[in-house]
Amino acid sequence: MTDDNGVGATARSDSPEQLRILLSVPAHELQAMFPAETRAALDELGEVVEHDPDDLADPAAFRAALAGVQVAITAWGFPRLDAARLADAPDLRFVMHAASSLRALTSDDFWATGIPVSQAGAAMSPAVAELSLAFTMALLRRTHRTDHALRSGGDWWEARLTPRAREIRGSRIGVVGASRTGRDYLELVTALGAEVMVFDPYIPEGDPLRAVQRDLDGLLRDSEVLALHAPATEETRGMLGATELAKLRDGALVVNTARAELLDADALYAEVESGRIDAALDVFEAEPLDDRWRRLPNVLVTPHLGGATVESRRRAGRIVVEEIRRFVGGVPLRYALTRADVERMG
Amino acid sequence: MTDDNGVGATARSDSPEQLRILLSVPAHELQAMFPAETRAALDELGEVVEHDPDDLADPAAFRAALAGVQVAITAWGFPRLDAARLADAPDLRFVMHAASSLRALTSDDFWATGIPVSQAGAAMSPAVAELSLAFTMALLRRTHRTDHALRSGGDWWEARLTPRAREIRGSRIGVVGASRTGRDYLELVTALGAEVMVFDPYIPEGDPLRAVQRDLDGLLRDSEVLALHAPATEETRGMLGATELAKLRDGALVVNTARAELLDADALYAEVESGRIDAALDVFEAEPLDDRWRRLPNVLVTPHLGGATVESRRRAGRIVVEEIRRFVGGVPLRYALTRADVERMG
Repeated sequence: MTDDNGVGATARSDSPEQLRILLSVPAHELQAMFPAETRAALDELGEVVEHDPDDLADPAAFRAALAGVQVAITAWGFPRLDAARLADAPDLRFVMHAASSLRALTSDDFWATGIPVSQAGAAMSPAVAELSLAFTMALLRRTHRTDHALRSGGDWWEARLTPRAREIRGSRIGVVGASRTGRDYLELVTALGAEVMVFDPYIPEGDPLRAVQRDLDGLLRDSEVLALHAPATEETRGMLGATELAKLRDGALVVNTARAELLDADALYAEVESGRIDAALDVFEAEPLDDRWRRLPNVLVTPHLGGATVESRRRAGRIVVEEIRRFVGGVPLRYALTRADVERMG
Repeated sequence: MTDDNGVGATARSDSPEQLRILLSVPAHELQAMFPAETRAALDELGEVVEHDPDDLADPAAFRAALAGVQVAITAWGFPRLDAARLADAPDLRFVMHAASSLRALTSDDFWATGIPVSQAGAAMSPAVAELSLAFTMALLRRTHRTDHALRSGGDWWEARLTPRAREIRGSRIGVVGASRTGRDYLELVTALGAEVMVFDPYIPEGDPLRAVQRDLDGLLRDSEVLALHAPATEETRGMLGATELAKLRDGALVVNTARAELLDADALYAEVESGRIDAALDVFEAEPLDDRWRRLPNVLVTPHLGGATVESRRRAGRIVVEEIRRFVGGVPLRYALTRADVERMG
């Protein structure tokens, strides 16, 4: 198996109907990703066998499920593909991850096999970007503060004295990370008239984002809204500590739908707790989130659902089918990732 | 005075520096509407005298404040201009309302004088439209439900089981009222990729909105988000009762940043309380809002701040100055309203 790294090499046989496809996504996502039409398109590509990822934690069950499987459709909760698991999947030629991050799934052993791997992260970025926009609008309009005040029995007139709302048109929004999600978000807020800035040391020459590129200090100093869209990597982990957050202007608004690891959680908590900045957070240093975050009136909290929309799940299913079709047809994959990609993307 | 209805007739004198302008907006809005630059532009137009509207409730104070005043800049809380007040303002030639609705300010007696009146509603419509967008995004993403669940100590995993979020791109949004605010909102959600429909029986021939015009039944049936942007008039009051709300699809989302009178409050409450629909409300049948609205997990509530943004207040001040400049220069007013306009606009 380690000698066979030709994309589609096995599948490009004379009998594509023989392809055996393992479909292993959580039961509650199956219909969401594969409604009738998408499922029918998948079924046309091979014999599809379904196994809930939870059932594959047992090695014997994994071995039985992977028998004869050439293409594995994986998602959250699928067992890590280490040497032992790979030995139990001798026919595996392609891994199609229906979710985004490949960190938990892949291993040194996996990369050594040369088996191509692709993922459906592109399905999720518009969803994450829209949640980031929802957070941005909420913070600018202070709806989190007024809603929390009224719901906790606060006085109407006092609630009206919350710091005055801002409009997104003309507001200065700084984005950390020119990722796919960051770019989708930039498109949305630009369409609404915001003035944008981006910090990302890796924006390529010729990229239009170069025109609004800033260094981190400048971005922190000038942003009215700071939106995080960077991956969690060795380079980005903890990039926003107490020193960096102190550079934000009074009243700055922090949106994080990306990764909690980007921020020093205690430093962020201290700034929000003091009331100097407000935040909207979908990701937390520990999930489920620590109780302290539930008590602050000036923070909006959601349970890590940035990528989870009706539409993103449908897109994921369609990407899965399209990538497998490419693999079967020997066409270059659209979202294949290398080990280096995964290390850079987090 | 009742014979003098020529716009700018008095002001077009040889000594415009003699114009006496009463500036009567609430103290906490004065700086917001008239920062240094705007105030300087106002001062160039005449002698400006400031009086807090609260201080003018006393007739003697009103009479003293209005002495020699030709232009009155009014806002929320300014005394109603009835016969008695008008008799105490013999030199009044122009009323510039720095807020939106003229209902409380004007009277039969006022309209009989023929004194021109203008208002700064245009300053507020982008702000209201943006709050309506913030509400739309929150409801689509269910951030109100998940935030409320987590804040009240709810389980993280249970909070994740909230009805799955929707994206605004591709969502079907129905707007009641092709008002200035309704049009601003339509522009925002269209820029984000929503499919829009409008109910308004008075869309003129040739208006591009004719292409997406629907009858009320069709709008209610097909909308995933229903956003209200109609004025409260005799025709619209109570237009959405139990019968109409029952036509909304399960899971429909109702946004009201316009007027509470458009809806039967009890019928709306019943639908939201049952969980069949979610709502985000900035306006209430009684303000301060009834406690019942504060308890529902699937409603987002704010204290009637739709038009109140930093930017809208600044725009209002600039409109005030521009309109008075027009009046002084004998140029047609941009936002003058007739009695008929006010009755139609609510």
